[in-house]
Amino acid sequence: GTLFSPREGTMADEAPFQFLHNEVLQYIYKSAENGETDNGRNIAKLENMGFRVGQGLMERLTKDTARFKDELDIMKFVCKDFWTCVFKKQIDNLRTNHQGIYVLQDNKFRLLSQLSAGKQYLEQAPKYLAFTCGLVRGALSNLGVKSIVTAEVSVMPACVSDHKMIRKIFS
Amino acid sequence: GTLFSPREGTMADEAPFQFLHNEVLQYIYKSAENGETDNGRNIAKLENMGFRVGQGLMERLTKDTARFKDELDIMKFVCKDFWTCVFKKQIDNLRTNHQGIYVLQDNKFRLLSQLSAGKQYLEQAPKYLAFTCGLVRGALSNLGVKSIVTAEVSVMPACVSDHKMIRKIFS
Repeated sequence: GTLFSPREGTMADEAPFQFLHNEVLQYIYKSAENGETDNGRNIAKLENMGFRVGQGLMERLTKDTARFKDELDIMKFVCKDFWTCVFKKQIDNLRTNHQGIYVLQDNKFRLLSQLSAGKQYLEQAPKYLAFTCGLVRGALSNLGVKSIVTAEVSVMPACVSDHKMIRKIFS
Repeated sequence: GTLFSPREGTMADEAPFQFLHNEVLQYIYKSAENGETDNGRNIAKLENMGFRVGQGLMERLTKDTARFKDELDIMKFVCKDFWTCVFKKQIDNLRTNHQGIYVLQDNKFRLLSQLSAGKQYLEQAPKYLAFTCGLVRGALSNLGVKSIVTAEVSVMPACVSDHKMIRKIFS
């Protein structure tokens, strides 16, 4: 007979991805041949990995979706459906100059939550953002949008545990 | 103003983890120094990575959970809460001899769904199972249960797209 009954959703639903991302980070930095001097190459590896995940994920997410009417429409999809699929929350703020520059703001970026605030935080941040930059670039690429994706972090006061990420997309 | 409205869940909710797992696999096998001869070492790397993810995940999942009353109780938690957290479905069947051997059966194991059926399927399967074996071992370890976790695959007729995984745990 059945040994257990159904279960409801928990707040840990995004955690497997988060933990696996962290392991990938550790693995790439530990297995780097040239040691600490090779930070740029490690960042590139993470970005590439993110790119492929973003491509595949967007392919699946848009399988049954009607075509997008313009670039802004695509960007809204990234902020809403795509971001929720990966991070279980939406982008908090999307701005654009209507000339190809988009700024996406996540006020509680999950992949930074394992870092504590302070100086070290700002130094370590780039390696925690590289995968996600690639992720967005890959997602857009799958929809035919070539882009440059960069990220910046703004640290909140140490007593607040939020991690803000601002993402700029030039397409 | 807000550029978009809330969104509902989709069937792709488990996909980010799945795609990232696949990239990890590719990366480890591509970056292996000794090439194809080193399959055992790659399997061990994947198993170790899974172990750490399983440990961290179980730590988080049981943070607010009352203590378990026995080993079977822990096993049910793995089949239900833990499995759903990672694979968005429960284990389909849990059997035990009540002497420390548990058999967990997943009739639609997500991390095998990218493989097509046939001979190659059985050859390739071990590398797609290693991470998850470690995952379960790590999860149990976090709850103080030492275990040996092995996995086997049973292929359905090619016309059926289900991928069955049977997992044995000796604790």
